[in-house]
Amino acid sequence: MGSTLLRNVKMVTMNDKDDILTGDILIKDDIIAEVGGRITDLEPDTTVIEARGKLLLPGFVQTHIHLCQTLFRGRADDMALMDWLRTRIWPLEAAHDAESIYYSAMLGIGELLLSGTTTILDMETVSHTESAFEAMAQSGIRAVSGKVMMDAGGDVPRGLQEQTEASLQESTRLLEKWHGHDGGRLSYAYCPRFVVSCSERLLTEVRDLSASYGVLVHTHAAENQEEIALVMTQRGMRNIVYLDHIGLTSPRLVLAHCIWLDEEERAIMKRTGTKMTHCPGSNLKLASGIANVPEMLDEGIGMGIGADGAPCNNTLDMFQEMRLTALLHKPRCGPESMDARRVLRMATIGGAQTLGMDHLTGSIEKGKKADLVLLNLNDFHTFPSFDADPYSRVVYAASRGNVDSVWVDGKNVVQRGRVRTMDKKLVLRETDKSIARLLARI
Amino acid sequence: MGSTLLRNVKMVTMNDKDDILTGDILIKDDIIAEVGGRITDLEPDTTVIEARGKLLLPGFVQTHIHLCQTLFRGRADDMALMDWLRTRIWPLEAAHDAESIYYSAMLGIGELLLSGTTTILDMETVSHTESAFEAMAQSGIRAVSGKVMMDAGGDVPRGLQEQTEASLQESTRLLEKWHGHDGGRLSYAYCPRFVVSCSERLLTEVRDLSASYGVLVHTHAAENQEEIALVMTQRGMRNIVYLDHIGLTSPRLVLAHCIWLDEEERAIMKRTGTKMTHCPGSNLKLASGIANVPEMLDEGIGMGIGADGAPCNNTLDMFQEMRLTALLHKPRCGPESMDARRVLRMATIGGAQTLGMDHLTGSIEKGKKADLVLLNLNDFHTFPSFDADPYSRVVYAASRGNVDSVWVDGKNVVQRGRVRTMDKKLVLRETDKSIARLLARI
Repeated sequence: MGSTLLRNVKMVTMNDKDDILTGDILIKDDIIAEVGGRITDLEPDTTVIEARGKLLLPGFVQTHIHLCQTLFRGRADDMALMDWLRTRIWPLEAAHDAESIYYSAMLGIGELLLSGTTTILDMETVSHTESAFEAMAQSGIRAVSGKVMMDAGGDVPRGLQEQTEASLQESTRLLEKWHGHDGGRLSYAYCPRFVVSCSERLLTEVRDLSASYGVLVHTHAAENQEEIALVMTQRGMRNIVYLDHIGLTSPRLVLAHCIWLDEEERAIMKRTGTKMTHCPGSNLKLASGIANVPEMLDEGIGMGIGADGAPCNNTLDMFQEMRLTALLHKPRCGPESMDARRVLRMATIGGAQTLGMDHLTGSIEKGKKADLVLLNLNDFHTFPSFDADPYSRVVYAASRGNVDSVWVDGKNVVQRGRVRTMDKKLVLRETDKSIARLLARI
Repeated sequence: MGSTLLRNVKMVTMNDKDDILTGDILIKDDIIAEVGGRITDLEPDTTVIEARGKLLLPGFVQTHIHLCQTLFRGRADDMALMDWLRTRIWPLEAAHDAESIYYSAMLGIGELLLSGTTTILDMETVSHTESAFEAMAQSGIRAVSGKVMMDAGGDVPRGLQEQTEASLQESTRLLEKWHGHDGGRLSYAYCPRFVVSCSERLLTEVRDLSASYGVLVHTHAAENQEEIALVMTQRGMRNIVYLDHIGLTSPRLVLAHCIWLDEEERAIMKRTGTKMTHCPGSNLKLASGIANVPEMLDEGIGMGIGADGAPCNNTLDMFQEMRLTALLHKPRCGPESMDARRVLRMATIGGAQTLGMDHLTGSIEKGKKADLVLLNLNDFHTFPSFDADPYSRVVYAASRGNVDSVWVDGKNVVQRGRVRTMDKKLVLRETDKSIARLLARI
């Protein structure tokens, strides 16, 4: 890929010291080769970009996304979780074909890249996950993904009903094909949907497989009171207590939501190093509630941010989720509880730590992967610039339109508001055709 | 100004029947001359714009804005109201000069127009309000504004301390100069800051003057527990009870926030036709709380939406505030409590009703002022478009970047993301100079 030099750029590094540097940065192939100062020793074919006045961030990391649902944006508004799943999302997921999965993923990734997200933890549906991986490979995003697993529970359309063994085999087949693909840019996670949809045998097999392959387990927990009541009825325990009881809790387990944890469950999260994803937009839209984020951060529970799926948000935009994360907890916990820097850490290095990928991404540091977002803040809504706090500008004021360029794995995937790795017109047209086909099918 | 025809556009009218029409719309001078169908009888110099696939909305109406604070964006993050006022906002307001007020207003208006807001109810500071009106006149926005009035209360910098008589005289002088300016595009409102900052004599004089001139009174109420305790200490009554006791409550009174009203106060609002502004972003950021919006709407209390000021939001973007208004109340009141159409009504015709301006603006109807926003939703984050609900697309998914063009009073003030009535580079440069000067002064 060669080398790219950004000149005279202000860098919000999100390293351990929260350094903010102004100077040059050199991208060589997929790696940040040098950071800071004036870099003069360049190879002849280096692309040099003058970036004075712009702001460089590590790419955002979203730790809970459903690309397979992007097509369903606006088809399931103003409903609570179980109703939303049973009457809209599950029938639509069951109606998917390989092509619709591909364009659903492309649509979501287009939005993600344009709004500065370079890494995601994704959960697909039961079938056609291969097509989602193809979209991730072509688009250039860094992704951890897997097929959803659901071998139990009622009210599920036939197309989503799995046999335990088949679910495990297909997951592992996908893992062996895609984990480590594109020099490690793509990886696999086992994705049991949630306790309500999974037999205990499935969950314990996933526990063992994930340990033996050293991959993440991505699931939902404690999102909604009805869900928690179902877990209690089925398993006789609270959600996180049950996950701990069967030995699934570990630093490789990433739980979306975790809104309704009691003290014992928070202590389990902390003790086992189990991670969570805060999804403020989705949690509000599904009327699920508000997680105790400042308290759990204070307790040392590892946490990223995720937009969840398009039909429960309805965007996949980290700027929206950062702003909500900063605002939502203040009335309960005080105006200082979630400052802009704390939120930007969650959105970058905190997300990378949640995925066990902080050695690769989440901060601007020499030797890490070049996953970078260049912002142009020369706009009415992000001014004045004089002596301005960059954390405040990014979290409280900026939006997707401020994204100038994005690099993932050293590759320039967004340039001046255009995704270079896909044909936008084609993707938009095909998503319309795909959703029309799915709606006709159900 | 001549005539403009938009061809083949989808119009979300926000009229009484919530009509959604596809067809042509003719703007003649400042007025919507014809709506719907195919319009063929055109004057020869009509500008014809093909708008197939785009969405036309009435311009957004924001019913609580402080343009004089736009320069303070990012200077007062993560603080609660009284501390925020006393240590940051009041000293900065007191440091303003005529030029800084002008550029603060231009910066705010630039942001407002670019994000589709065509009408505002604004509150300026004690001095230099003339400069804000000049910015409103030049920029082309529809605005109701007035100087703030504060003749009582402690911890106020000398530059903001007023004598009762002088405050009243200066307000009325500005009213007589600016009310009805530019064919009615600008108008005046008396703006006592809040009960804590105002003598009873000032408030009763404002009551009489506003009645005799037939203009709005714009103030804050029940935003914060400390403020409410101060009102109780000073006046021996709860905030709205006191305003009613002195006869200030009326359909011409617009109260920002109204977070902490008890049943008696809500009944007073309803009985007197007093209006309120919901400011969800500001209320979260200052940790003030969450107003009982769905309940108050159900009770028939008139309500608009406002971003408040840049230092407590930190944007002036109706898309952000609509999304928050739709999301924020669901966990308490259920997922159906605030659907997208209800929120879009608040942001358009509801805001116009709050200002007593619904005969002029807030919906797309023949004979109303041409205050219009054209959206281009051909983007990843607003797709699929197939059979999509326009309310959902606008409220839950769209953002400022989807604004293609804006008309106020028939004049095309925004065209493809550019404000035509101001020099952006100049405004940005001068806002930096202005805030630097103010910071040096305090």
